[in-house]
Amino acid sequence: MTSTVKQSRNGVDTEVLFATLDAVKAAPEAAKLQFRAHNEWVSGTHNRSTIADFFGVGEERAHERTFVFDADHPAVLVGRDNGPTPVEFVLHALAACLTSGLANIAAARGITLHEVRSMVSGDIDLNGILGLNPEVRNGYQQISVRFQIKGDAPADVLKGLIEQSRKRSAVFDVITNGAPVTIDVDAN
Amino acid sequence: MTSTVKQSRNGVDTEVLFATLDAVKAAPEAAKLQFRAHNEWVSGTHNRSTIADFFGVGEERAHERTFVFDADHPAVLVGRDNGPTPVEFVLHALAACLTSGLANIAAARGITLHEVRSMVSGDIDLNGILGLNPEVRNGYQQISVRFQIKGDAPADVLKGLIEQSRKRSAVFDVITNGAPVTIDVDAN
Repeated sequence: MTSTVKQSRNGVDTEVLFATLDAVKAAPEAAKLQFRAHNEWVSGTHNRSTIADFFGVGEERAHERTFVFDADHPAVLVGRDNGPTPVEFVLHALAACLTSGLANIAAARGITLHEVRSMVSGDIDLNGILGLNPEVRNGYQQISVRFQIKGDAPADVLKGLIEQSRKRSAVFDVITNGAPVTIDVDAN
Repeated sequence: MTSTVKQSRNGVDTEVLFATLDAVKAAPEAAKLQFRAHNEWVSGTHNRSTIADFFGVGEERAHERTFVFDADHPAVLVGRDNGPTPVEFVLHALAACLTSGLANIAAARGITLHEVRSMVSGDIDLNGILGLNPEVRNGYQQISVRFQIKGDAPADVLKGLIEQSRKRSAVFDVITNGAPVTIDVDAN
């Protein structure tokens, strides 16, 4: 196996990965990131977010293109189904974060991944959101992730990749441990 | 103002909204929802989720169409920017959930909204995700939401709509209070 092949294992440029680690080690202040989403109400439960700018590695940056996402409720939840529900985006974020980390960790450990699939499900009781039962929470009561992973390593090593990805996942951390949220309103 | 106009205030069919409340009151078991996202790894930090099916109001259902979302890291975070980062989807989910609830609550209270915009930002320190400092968390250290809301009510009444939406928001609940997540792995 040539050095070039190693560098692009799993589509991960491990030289850049390790260079990033070294850069943050050398300049911890470069580690500060701020992500943003801009949302605009459309009608009813339908609204739209734009994701474009962020702050990272010392300066204001922009994604290669502007990403736009609609959210809505389905008809059975008094919406028009112009997009997934907000809570479904949370499940996508969790699957995506665990999977993004996985490829990097596998590459760093010299493991080639062949296939990674996951299904995330989350259970909600409408009695919470509708305010009908104060003992029922608004959010997910339970979230389950089921991974199918194939690669050139024994099953326990592949499972160890997912365990390490979980340990370093930003979204897993936020969902399981929570994060402080402040809300300011300019009304007129 | 005619009854027809009232029914579609803010694009919300309040008759359906109240009928849904009554239906769940009458049959609490109809309140069980399960949402799902199916994710597939593409390459490196790039992966893709499909959101199509869910369980709600007593039966398996499908969205009007299948929603597909790519997630990736930008180049400065060792990706190729084929989509927003997973953590940005969390911010979108939060803005979307607070805004979806808002239009329903305003309609129920007889308030017409003219404009609702929000900007959500979240701060992350890479020293956590990169495993460089065990005292730094992986996820958001702080999330801030700034709303601009215009409608046919005094500022304090409009602010009250957002406060009520926060109280009933599934995503706000999950992000601020956390939710249990289980991960199962099928490796071969």
